[in-house]
Amino acid sequence: MTSKPLPQHFTVLVRAIPVSDGVAVSDAVDKFFREYHSSTYLSHTVVHQTGKLRRLLNDAENICTKLTNLKYVHRSSQDAPRKFLGLFGRNDVLGKYQKRLEDVEENVRLEQSDATRRQEIPAAFVSFRSRYGAANAIYIRQSDNPTEWQTEHAPDPHDVYWPFFSTSFMERWIAKFVVFVASVLLILVFLLVVAFVQGLTYLEQVEKWLPFLRKILEIAVVSQLVTGYLPSVILHVLSSYVPSIMKLFSTMQGFISVSGIERSACNKMLRFTIWTVFFANVLTGSVLVQVEIFLNPKEIPSKLAVLVPAQASFFIAYVVTSWTSITSELTQTAALFCHLWGKCAKCCRRDTSEAPSMPYHSEIPRILLFGLLGFTYFIVAPLILPFVLVYFCLGYFIFRNQLFNVYAPKYDTGGKFWPIVHNTTIFSLVVLHIIAIGVFGLKKLPLASSLLLPLPVLTLLFNEFCRNRFVPIFEAYSTESLIKKDREEQSKPEMLEFFSNLVTAYRDPALKPIRRASNSDERTAPLLASSPI
Amino acid sequence: MTSKPLPQHFTVLVRAIPVSDGVAVSDAVDKFFREYHSSTYLSHTVVHQTGKLRRLLNDAENICTKLTNLKYVHRSSQDAPRKFLGLFGRNDVLGKYQKRLEDVEENVRLEQSDATRRQEIPAAFVSFRSRYGAANAIYIRQSDNPTEWQTEHAPDPHDVYWPFFSTSFMERWIAKFVVFVASVLLILVFLLVVAFVQGLTYLEQVEKWLPFLRKILEIAVVSQLVTGYLPSVILHVLSSYVPSIMKLFSTMQGFISVSGIERSACNKMLRFTIWTVFFANVLTGSVLVQVEIFLNPKEIPSKLAVLVPAQASFFIAYVVTSWTSITSELTQTAALFCHLWGKCAKCCRRDTSEAPSMPYHSEIPRILLFGLLGFTYFIVAPLILPFVLVYFCLGYFIFRNQLFNVYAPKYDTGGKFWPIVHNTTIFSLVVLHIIAIGVFGLKKLPLASSLLLPLPVLTLLFNEFCRNRFVPIFEAYSTESLIKKDREEQSKPEMLEFFSNLVTAYRDPALKPIRRASNSDERTAPLLASSPI
Repeated sequence: MTSKPLPQHFTVLVRAIPVSDGVAVSDAVDKFFREYHSSTYLSHTVVHQTGKLRRLLNDAENICTKLTNLKYVHRSSQDAPRKFLGLFGRNDVLGKYQKRLEDVEENVRLEQSDATRRQEIPAAFVSFRSRYGAANAIYIRQSDNPTEWQTEHAPDPHDVYWPFFSTSFMERWIAKFVVFVASVLLILVFLLVVAFVQGLTYLEQVEKWLPFLRKILEIAVVSQLVTGYLPSVILHVLSSYVPSIMKLFSTMQGFISVSGIERSACNKMLRFTIWTVFFANVLTGSVLVQVEIFLNPKEIPSKLAVLVPAQASFFIAYVVTSWTSITSELTQTAALFCHLWGKCAKCCRRDTSEAPSMPYHSEIPRILLFGLLGFTYFIVAPLILPFVLVYFCLGYFIFRNQLFNVYAPKYDTGGKFWPIVHNTTIFSLVVLHIIAIGVFGLKKLPLASSLLLPLPVLTLLFNEFCRNRFVPIFEAYSTESLIKKDREEQSKPEMLEFFSNLVTAYRDPALKPIRRASNSDERTAPLLASSPI
Repeated sequence: MTSKPLPQHFTVLVRAIPVSDGVAVSDAVDKFFREYHSSTYLSHTVVHQTGKLRRLLNDAENICTKLTNLKYVHRSSQDAPRKFLGLFGRNDVLGKYQKRLEDVEENVRLEQSDATRRQEIPAAFVSFRSRYGAANAIYIRQSDNPTEWQTEHAPDPHDVYWPFFSTSFMERWIAKFVVFVASVLLILVFLLVVAFVQGLTYLEQVEKWLPFLRKILEIAVVSQLVTGYLPSVILHVLSSYVPSIMKLFSTMQGFISVSGIERSACNKMLRFTIWTVFFANVLTGSVLVQVEIFLNPKEIPSKLAVLVPAQASFFIAYVVTSWTSITSELTQTAALFCHLWGKCAKCCRRDTSEAPSMPYHSEIPRILLFGLLGFTYFIVAPLILPFVLVYFCLGYFIFRNQLFNVYAPKYDTGGKFWPIVHNTTIFSLVVLHIIAIGVFGLKKLPLASSLLLPLPVLTLLFNEFCRNRFVPIFEAYSTESLIKKDREEQSKPEMLEFFSNLVTAYRDPALKPIRRASNSDERTAPLLASSPI
């Protein structure tokens, strides 16, 4: 537990607040917590429907950006020789935007000041006087009806994802289902692409598909490039678009924090990567053929033992091309291109002074895939190991640098990505065991094969042990540490200030007043100033 | 929540108490709970190793029974004409037993008074001043290390199963594994038996197995009895022995309460019944063939659609024979035979004045099996339905009577058997859907078959809803009800007495003084008087 008191340790998010007609959500929350948590209850912040306000603020920001760009162009065009049409109109446009910005800001102020216009959502952040009080509210069911007064850990105030509070329990369920179907579809579509890419590794197939290329393909260099390097490059490029799609999916699912969204996206990406990159390339064939293999559990080991070694050269090439992609992480090529493009097309010039945050949801699954490759090829094609090792060494130094010097963390992950890493490693180990059993089976060594059978069982038992021993630590603090911390802080004078800040910590940022002087030239002033907590 | 305060609502069982050398478990518990639950902690009772004491008490009870029997025989033989050897010796034996009983009782008293002889077990019952205080200790992890200070609901004091406290965490894990293997073996052995029984339904097979019976089997009545009735009777008789074996297995697993043991035995019996009675009879064939079917998930519906109707007549006969078994529940035939046998062999004459308790672990799985039969044959052989209906009607009236007038509940189940019933019903429904899909597939109605596909999905979604809405209620009381109850009781004067009783409620009954006047003639005095709470 960090030494500084943080709002999320004292706060609980309550959802599904039952409200009878004529009673405000705020009053219901106050009554409930004053009754059942009288000694520790501090304050609460009801969440409001702020979709309209958010749209207005967005409009304001867009206009503001346009205005800034116009001013910038205007200023630079003043130095340049005047153009035919530059004589008039430009200043008019500037004035028009200024007028519109003022209108929108007036609207925003109106909307912010008039609380009656906003609909209350039956959800609230409830703050307590002690960490232990908050824990009590989280881990003991509050209401007799388990679907009401549902409590959960509140995220960091900066980590809250406000737009999705408006969704109801039912909407979230439907969204979950839709997202599930969509991710499965995405995997299926991608599998088709992979089937095509895999075809490229067989020169004859390429010549059959694209007969007009036969002449070019007969050149040694080209054919080597096409069969050895091109498939990996295509795979890399295509998969670079998937993380953002997965993040969009997770956003639709109605998580209440950015960290929750990224964790869910990380899980989705992991499943996607393992299926489309590993299994699709190993099993090669239509989706139906792949599913067929998994419907015959008895034959999985022998099938894998045949199919996995066959793709060793492809995966070695894949690892080698990944060296490039991890180095491009260092040079931030994508960000550079984006920046350059923005500079050329002046109209979309934006302030890029903010440091980017680490894209955990795209990087963790990629690194875990190389772990899986290392484990699974460890027996059947050990040649891959040095390449994977080089990848991990590069990765270590590059990400160490990036984490220290480039990325600014948006939220404290609290180590909650670690269980994902652990589970994937266990999965990789089990796949390794299955392949080993299959290989010994193929080599007609039934004794060796059956002697290996306890291995996956032992691995899963170890996993079970870890689940009992370590997972609870990731989920909650203990009474011991909570109470120790509470006692330490009781006497500290700065806690009074902390509590007075806590009362307003979970206010929707859309409701905070706009602090931008709309006419000032200072382009770096953020539209939404984040208040110090 | 019952209106009367019960010890288990205020008490928590703490296991895996970490003890450093030289510190007693009792002191460690006291220190921990005084520190972290100072406002609600009331008292604690450390569990002791009482295996030796329990053996001595058992000896004492055995000798006492023998003595009583001897006295009984002695008294009746005084009236009867004296036998040749009855002249001497009888009184000597009586005196010898009396002497031995006194010795053993002296030992028991010594053992009970000398606390240093008993080893402390790192487990304790910790009582709190309020229900909410106890809930806090259960639902929030106590220690930083999740394997230490593990808390759970304390069972009813009468429900505690004392002998198994001596097992360590590791021993319990191993026991769990051994029991799992043993139950699987039991199912496999039973499947062989069922395969034989199933053979009896085909007359030709019986004649092949037992050629010398051919003459007898040619008589119409005998052949009808053998093929129609005998298999069911054999199955019924054999399965009547299984519940006690399953209960023994569950006892070995180290549950701390009798109710926990019976719940686990109920689950085991359910799996056993569904496999050996339903699937083994439906799938007919070696174990390998059965496993083979489940390894081809795609073919399960069509296989079931062929195999299930084929066994309809057997299951109708099974339901009809069950009418007898449920009626024998009314007459308590087994108990009567036991009693009569005990009367004949006077040496094991025991006091049977105590009412038996309901054997949930053998009755619930049996009734659920008939539910499964009703659901699965509902489409393919509706003729079974009236027979099942008669069974359920008989069952309702018979068990209603038994529960009101015959059985005395040993513990309050708290409705915790209900989730088992719910889950089995959902399972039966899904099997029904799969069979329906298979039947329509066989009838070459692919549209109907695929239109049915959403049904199992919807059933599982409904199950998921119930899991969210209702299961939490079975697991824990809510803050709302706990605090309401605490406040109601705060002012009641009888709570003082309740708390003073609570302090000693969880004392091991082996440590309570023997209250039997060893020389008195009163045969109904219980050896272990249960103290009123």
